[in-house]
Amino acid sequence: MSTSGNDIDLTMQRIGAAARSAARVLVKTDKSQRSAALHAMGQSILACEKSILAANARDLEMALKSGAKSAFADRLKLTSASIHGMAKGIETVAWLPDPVGDAEAEWTRPNGLKISRVRVPIGVIGIIYESRPNVTGDAAALCVKAGNAVILRGGSEAMGSALAIRDAIAVGLLRVGLPAEAVQVVPTNDRAAVGQMLSGLGGTIDVIIPRGGKSLVARVQKEARVPVLAHLDGNCHVYADKAADIAKALEIVLNSKMRRVSVCGAAETLLVDAAGASRLLRPLVTALLEAGCEVRGDRITQTIDPRVHAAVEEDWYTEFLDAVIAVKIVEGVEGAISHIGKYGSAHTESIVTEDFAAAETFLREVDSAIVLHNASTQFADGAEFGFGAEVGIATGRLHARGPVGARELTTFKYVVRGDGQVRS
Amino acid sequence: MSTSGNDIDLTMQRIGAAARSAARVLVKTDKSQRSAALHAMGQSILACEKSILAANARDLEMALKSGAKSAFADRLKLTSASIHGMAKGIETVAWLPDPVGDAEAEWTRPNGLKISRVRVPIGVIGIIYESRPNVTGDAAALCVKAGNAVILRGGSEAMGSALAIRDAIAVGLLRVGLPAEAVQVVPTNDRAAVGQMLSGLGGTIDVIIPRGGKSLVARVQKEARVPVLAHLDGNCHVYADKAADIAKALEIVLNSKMRRVSVCGAAETLLVDAAGASRLLRPLVTALLEAGCEVRGDRITQTIDPRVHAAVEEDWYTEFLDAVIAVKIVEGVEGAISHIGKYGSAHTESIVTEDFAAAETFLREVDSAIVLHNASTQFADGAEFGFGAEVGIATGRLHARGPVGARELTTFKYVVRGDGQVRS
Repeated sequence: MSTSGNDIDLTMQRIGAAARSAARVLVKTDKSQRSAALHAMGQSILACEKSILAANARDLEMALKSGAKSAFADRLKLTSASIHGMAKGIETVAWLPDPVGDAEAEWTRPNGLKISRVRVPIGVIGIIYESRPNVTGDAAALCVKAGNAVILRGGSEAMGSALAIRDAIAVGLLRVGLPAEAVQVVPTNDRAAVGQMLSGLGGTIDVIIPRGGKSLVARVQKEARVPVLAHLDGNCHVYADKAADIAKALEIVLNSKMRRVSVCGAAETLLVDAAGASRLLRPLVTALLEAGCEVRGDRITQTIDPRVHAAVEEDWYTEFLDAVIAVKIVEGVEGAISHIGKYGSAHTESIVTEDFAAAETFLREVDSAIVLHNASTQFADGAEFGFGAEVGIATGRLHARGPVGARELTTFKYVVRGDGQVRS
Repeated sequence: MSTSGNDIDLTMQRIGAAARSAARVLVKTDKSQRSAALHAMGQSILACEKSILAANARDLEMALKSGAKSAFADRLKLTSASIHGMAKGIETVAWLPDPVGDAEAEWTRPNGLKISRVRVPIGVIGIIYESRPNVTGDAAALCVKAGNAVILRGGSEAMGSALAIRDAIAVGLLRVGLPAEAVQVVPTNDRAAVGQMLSGLGGTIDVIIPRGGKSLVARVQKEARVPVLAHLDGNCHVYADKAADIAKALEIVLNSKMRRVSVCGAAETLLVDAAGASRLLRPLVTALLEAGCEVRGDRITQTIDPRVHAAVEEDWYTEFLDAVIAVKIVEGVEGAISHIGKYGSAHTESIVTEDFAAAETFLREVDSAIVLHNASTQFADGAEFGFGAEVGIATGRLHARGPVGARELTTFKYVVRGDGQVRS
């Protein structure tokens, strides 16, 4: 679709107004209505499989014509299986606990006022993501679950697929009497539309969630004039303490690094307690090397094996997202905490130790969204937390940290019930 | 103090680094240490009464010399009583429940991982406020209570007083072994220092809280590159439903508007249900007029009394902060909700009714930080909520809404305890 700057302004204003109006309807729904909406959305996606696959085939053809690589086309491609997976994902979200309307605290004041803090929808969520079209279904489901309207801006190559998924979702929403505009897809590839979303569409968008590579997230964090829930880096650490069980340490380090190297919860640096290095360092480094991981070590680590490369200062800051790990000797749990404070990205860090006092110090003092004791950093995931689904992981300090699930897509308000109280 | 731009940069960088370093110490404290710190801060303020009063006298003299009005000087002036009040306020905060370290949710996953969501300090809070020097003590106390370091930038005329209060607080902090830099006051009047705070001091300030007039808050909201907890307007509404008890309605409307007209929780518009107007409108309008309140009414309201002025469109948007109220007839609770949605500022709104179904609709659908049933809007206050103290009221949608007390000055992290779990 080709649109002029002025057309884009109008399109985005219309989308924003429709989203706000849909949010006003959603805020009136109860848990059973939202759950029915999700079931209907999932069923409708199954019913629309043919048209979604056809739209996806057109997207793929265009992408290949304009010279897309095959890895890229793979991410873009939808199959009958992936459409069933999307529908199943929405169904899963439908069965999750619904946070909206829950009173998370209630108390009565001496004057008889009953105060409760009640979870309510945030309002309108903007999600900006890259090529995978199936994100459209997942993200829409979580937003509707939490009673929010959502404006989705996916990868430009997947726009036709996203619009077809939106059409299917719209049918589901309408079937249960909710506005189709609760889930909208920006129907233009023009990057000006992203700029408009980042400006908040004149107060319409309450929060932006970017999903994608570092450059996308960095742009969003830099330019957004509304709050952003995201993480820029997942520079995660495993610290093997002098009191670590070596079998657990081996399993946890290998899993944290190598289970999937491209996820944000993958470990990027291994810290080894100097007091335990003679026992721990060689088996850990050897196991990593044997597993096909490149090891970049400090001076002591380099003495373990000739295959260890010399780490440079930059390595401690780096999220490799690859089969590469930096390894460093530190002075006990305090040394680990201080290294993580300097080089970490406040995402996810794990301590391996049988010393519970050391573990508690680490868990308390490491200032990251997720801190683990004797477990793999790869558990940094909404599904693994029991959230059923997530729209991402946040490392900011306000509102949401760690996996962003349905609860984090809500906010709260105070409801005060009285019987004529006035203030003296 | 006169400082060049370069000096200010250096000063602010030093303040930021010291605050971050103090926050790292505070995050290690437990509830009893923070409580001891607050008791020591309060005692030290009492012990330093003479030097604080002397500094305040110099501030006052300078302000009067440069032509300050007497109302302004009144707000600036500290007395022995106000210093005792400040110490007592800090003591009150010391006795409040301490949110830090509380696990607000805990669950165990099928694989045995124990996950808890634990409240932790935010880190470094920046507070920008206007002339009243006693804010220095209150704000410092709440921030330390929640385990945060704070950078305070008060009104330039009160800088000497604020620095003297900081000196007293520093003595208290040092006496319990905490860094004096947990509470810092910006020691320059240069507005560039504010700009630096709004930019976050290179990632040092996690959140900014402005306290003061609308122009201050607007500037902070517009320019800040870090999250802001604040409210711009308190355009609060009382809606008198057709099923309102007239005695309650009279008390609540008068109290909401007239108890104190200059607070953000004061009512600015009265909405009256058309179906109850013949019973409610005349007594309410008459009582307001008799109480000395100017009434700006819609066409029907103007027929009640010749003293009623004609309301213009702008009045529905206006936070008068004065003995002025706008009055409008609306079509039932839905009409009230829709008026508030269009003109309100999402601060505080109250419904007066004996119809509990109407009340629940209002409480659910009015999208404000605080919604009340049969109670005065002037309860919009941290102390009235039982928070002991507040650093302000927030109307944003993320993290904190309503009174910002110690809990809202914390965030959370996930603590995961395992026994060697890895992800399959």
